[in-house]
Amino acid sequence: MGLQNEEKLELGCSSSQQRSKKWVLLTVRVIAFLATATATLVMALNKETKTLVVAMVGSTPIKVTLTAKFQHTPAFVFFVIANGMASFHNLMMIMVELFGQKLDYKGLRLAMIAILDMTTVALISGGASAATFMAEVGKNGNSHARWNKICDKFETFCDRGGVAIIASSAGLILMLIITAMSIFKLLNKPKSVSS
Amino acid sequence: MGLQNEEKLELGCSSSQQRSKKWVLLTVRVIAFLATATATLVMALNKETKTLVVAMVGSTPIKVTLTAKFQHTPAFVFFVIANGMASFHNLMMIMVELFGQKLDYKGLRLAMIAILDMTTVALISGGASAATFMAEVGKNGNSHARWNKICDKFETFCDRGGVAIIASSAGLILMLIITAMSIFKLLNKPKSVSS
Repeated sequence: MGLQNEEKLELGCSSSQQRSKKWVLLTVRVIAFLATATATLVMALNKETKTLVVAMVGSTPIKVTLTAKFQHTPAFVFFVIANGMASFHNLMMIMVELFGQKLDYKGLRLAMIAILDMTTVALISGGASAATFMAEVGKNGNSHARWNKICDKFETFCDRGGVAIIASSAGLILMLIITAMSIFKLLNKPKSVSS
Repeated sequence: MGLQNEEKLELGCSSSQQRSKKWVLLTVRVIAFLATATATLVMALNKETKTLVVAMVGSTPIKVTLTAKFQHTPAFVFFVIANGMASFHNLMMIMVELFGQKLDYKGLRLAMIAILDMTTVALISGGASAATFMAEVGKNGNSHARWNKICDKFETFCDRGGVAIIASSAGLILMLIITAMSIFKLLNKPKSVSS
């Protein structure tokens, strides 16, 4: 039923243009998914263990093993959750677009997608910002609060964190574009849906 | 059935329903504006100076004056900018709704508003998350990074920061609702615009 309507409309308003638009949106979604999935994995697997010699007793070195994990910083935990949820959202939307064209509820399909996209934007934005500013403290420290930088000791940890943040930021920009596209889709929405 | 009614109402212009919806949206926008403006001001004016006695030379106390300012933490600076911009956005949208009903560009008015709202959601979400996680370090410290808490010394500073973050979170929730309303508005948009 929904498909028939859509098909009629497509015939009415340049089906090839509609179809190419659909593929553009799908491609951007796939890239956004890859970006947030990369961010999730890189951050979730981020762990660096270092053994430092802190003193010598005779000829026996006293060593301390320190580990930097993303779990130690609540902002990074939120980052992983937020990017994981964003990846899941984009995966679902790709599935719905490919296999669930008939899924609809009272003609609200497009509006629901736009609202879910917008919520995901909020989520990634929160995760990426929190991680960015926490990483900044890790990199530069904060002399006023007497928080020392830790990136001089845990270089690999910081580099990987940076990669995750860059991937997440790319995901955020793509999600902003996707949400704008979802909103514009509502403008061209066939009125027939509500009849 | 419900949808058919809606269409009839739209055809009949259903002015009273439309008008009441408009006022609901305007009221929520005003509250959101007040929330983000409060967050901006409370954080921007957040400053605490403490004089501590660090030593005694004979009977002369040696004092150190420490100041906690929001400017010392990049996350709080971003928080102030983000909430300030969100307040400005809501103020503009209120103005446009009240006095600029004729403002439009190629029938894109509603879509532009929805997209600006969505961008503002991203902005507040980023600002609020960054500040929240930074405040958490200020409150609890981070033993792994050897960052000591500072809220035991600067209680007033931390309390005010907390108030600003709560106000901003309220603003974020309201902006999510507003954006959802802006998106739904596109659904009921008269078809004439895009044809």
